[in-house]
Amino acid sequence: MENKIIAAVAGNGLLDRRSFLLSGMALSGVTLAAGHSAVSVANVESIPAAIVDPVPQWMRSAGGSDNAYGLPSIHESHVQRQLAETTPQTSLFSIWHTPIEQQRGIITPNGLHFSVHHNGIPDIDPQQHELMIHGLVDKPLKFDMESLLRYPTVSSIHFLECAGNTAANAVSLTALDQSCQDLYGQVSGSEWSGVPLKYLLNEAGIKPSAKWVIVEGADGGSHSRSIPLEKLLDDAFIALYQNGERLRPSQGYPMRLFVPGWEGNANVKWVHRLEVTDKPAYSKDESGLYSDILANGSIQRFSFHMDVKSVITQPSGRQHLPEKHGFYEISGLAWSGYGKIKQVEVSADGGKTWAIAQLHGPVLAKSLTRFSIPWQWAGTDSVLISRATDEMGRVQPSRDQWRAQYASYSFNHYNAMQAWHINSDGKVENYYV
Amino acid sequence: MENKIIAAVAGNGLLDRRSFLLSGMALSGVTLAAGHSAVSVANVESIPAAIVDPVPQWMRSAGGSDNAYGLPSIHESHVQRQLAETTPQTSLFSIWHTPIEQQRGIITPNGLHFSVHHNGIPDIDPQQHELMIHGLVDKPLKFDMESLLRYPTVSSIHFLECAGNTAANAVSLTALDQSCQDLYGQVSGSEWSGVPLKYLLNEAGIKPSAKWVIVEGADGGSHSRSIPLEKLLDDAFIALYQNGERLRPSQGYPMRLFVPGWEGNANVKWVHRLEVTDKPAYSKDESGLYSDILANGSIQRFSFHMDVKSVITQPSGRQHLPEKHGFYEISGLAWSGYGKIKQVEVSADGGKTWAIAQLHGPVLAKSLTRFSIPWQWAGTDSVLISRATDEMGRVQPSRDQWRAQYASYSFNHYNAMQAWHINSDGKVENYYV
Repeated sequence: MENKIIAAVAGNGLLDRRSFLLSGMALSGVTLAAGHSAVSVANVESIPAAIVDPVPQWMRSAGGSDNAYGLPSIHESHVQRQLAETTPQTSLFSIWHTPIEQQRGIITPNGLHFSVHHNGIPDIDPQQHELMIHGLVDKPLKFDMESLLRYPTVSSIHFLECAGNTAANAVSLTALDQSCQDLYGQVSGSEWSGVPLKYLLNEAGIKPSAKWVIVEGADGGSHSRSIPLEKLLDDAFIALYQNGERLRPSQGYPMRLFVPGWEGNANVKWVHRLEVTDKPAYSKDESGLYSDILANGSIQRFSFHMDVKSVITQPSGRQHLPEKHGFYEISGLAWSGYGKIKQVEVSADGGKTWAIAQLHGPVLAKSLTRFSIPWQWAGTDSVLISRATDEMGRVQPSRDQWRAQYASYSFNHYNAMQAWHINSDGKVENYYV
Repeated sequence: MENKIIAAVAGNGLLDRRSFLLSGMALSGVTLAAGHSAVSVANVESIPAAIVDPVPQWMRSAGGSDNAYGLPSIHESHVQRQLAETTPQTSLFSIWHTPIEQQRGIITPNGLHFSVHHNGIPDIDPQQHELMIHGLVDKPLKFDMESLLRYPTVSSIHFLECAGNTAANAVSLTALDQSCQDLYGQVSGSEWSGVPLKYLLNEAGIKPSAKWVIVEGADGGSHSRSIPLEKLLDDAFIALYQNGERLRPSQGYPMRLFVPGWEGNANVKWVHRLEVTDKPAYSKDESGLYSDILANGSIQRFSFHMDVKSVITQPSGRQHLPEKHGFYEISGLAWSGYGKIKQVEVSADGGKTWAIAQLHGPVLAKSLTRFSIPWQWAGTDSVLISRATDEMGRVQPSRDQWRAQYASYSFNHYNAMQAWHINSDGKVENYYV
């Protein structure tokens, strides 16, 4: 085997992304006993026992049957959404976290998408559900499902993130020993499809004095948010589909507002009413939980954008690295509510030196973006950090920089750099730098 | 309302894609009675009865609870995979079709992905499963799940299509009155993630005489295909994840070969063995069902690429257009195993005139690509056709052109232009032009 040079690109073992092909490094494949001759594929029985020993049970008989709607393997039943510790399951308020460290790529399967419910999940009959547009319009309109499905649709891959994602790191004075699912499980990625709101609002005819639209859900608590008209005429749509199938009940079936890049609860689920107005409603859902309290005690309302953010998902909190001096791929997700991710830097020495990670395409606006970088762990205490920059030039702050802006008990819109401490025994822990 | 000009872009009602915004055309929103004043969102009870009448049951109480792995709405239980008529469900050979006309966007949800099983679905214990590489290599290797997960991974959005998709139109002398799911249900789109084979083969060390790799699955029938080494060193990978979660059993759990753009059965499921050789194996699965019989009776083997193809999914077979003289969005999917889709043309007059449809991004290589064009149906008999061109300049043939190449009973790799006949009563039917 050739011994080519593996280029270090930053301190403590961060490697050039071509290390694998350059080095021919043996990673973890186990060498079989030598001397096996090529065997005929037509005759499985002739394969040397050392290669297939024994022939597994599932190759000795025909397999099972399939079904009309597929499900994951029973061997993956540990990969589930989990209720946030702070919100025990009730029929009203609950938060379900996606197992983000189990995900690869940028799409979250619908069954594992995070969800936050303020008033439980309404069981809406799609045949009876209607969307209405009224207020400062020339012609109030209502749409049933059949009529909405007649309109041109758009499809876009976007992230969706709860304003309160990673709240624990915002408010806890010590870094809690939690998993990535615990800390970052309120962000997911999907392809959303639906009807652009500009078509519907254009048809209703917007009066000149209109500036806001009050968007209300048909859940028991009428979750509602005031959205600037400008956003709805830009890239917002009434989402009817998620990852190619109709929205699921926990995601707003039969329809939700989708405002790309904006905090989760502004993407009003089970939407049934849009009232065009000249001022915001200051509804309970926007004047209460989803206002930000600044360091000087004043209130920042209508902070819709989710800021640039990233997290290393492999390795991450509560995982264990099995092998000292081993090769690992550091992999994670970055996203920004302002546009595309431009760059992700990674440090393996607690922020002393940084290397630029590889971004995996497609790199899309307001979407999860996968990044990775190879790492040779020396087996010593190490601190991994990722830092994302978006196309607007926005960069993730440090935790101290973030906290300096807000009251000590404010927890929404936390987007500081995440650090993971790798202990010399391989355990990965949440860490504040 | 302004009466701006709606530009026709081809015969029989095909419109410019900006028609909606240009015209302010009223489509299907129902006008509410005039005179409603703006109402306070904080007080649902004050909304005029004409707007919400009655307040639906699901707004009168708190909703239900969520669960650890989400499922579709019970109101969507009609959206299912269906067994192909030609393959009744057995524990051996079965074909499940995806409801492609129900999909929007380019991602198929995992529960609805098409599947073809030659020997049923093996129930593989991922802790016992191993992938081995042997034959013309310096060092035979085997990998268990844990070791494979240590390697760098790639993620890509790709289509997967069975070689036999749309076989009915290839061999039936009359156009069968079938749905899009019946005719085109063996193609789906997903984000696949896994380990590039070049890493694994590079580590094993390929001997100079190596040209092919015999790839074998661990199902009861040992489904196997011979794949050119060049493809495996190019963009092939061992897929471990589909749409962000581990492969499902019907898609090859715990691992499958993924060869982007190549016929479905070459993407060997439940893969457990790669034998590097200097010649193909002519296994039963490649010398039998998946050979193409040409018009002169000779056999074409190893025709791996799925050719450029498209289908209008809305409207499509067995659907009904509800309104004469109505606006409709014609929407469909195009794909090519050779690269990106460059252009899709649509005709509404049986091929006399053509307009260029809008391609919806992201337009990715060897991936489903969504296209659409607005259409004003005059209520008369019409024939809709789509014709895709890929970046290599390959264009879909007519049905006659396609059939001229193959024996009359050959049915794989059918990629002719699909026509749908719109009857004056609105019924959509499969049609040969």
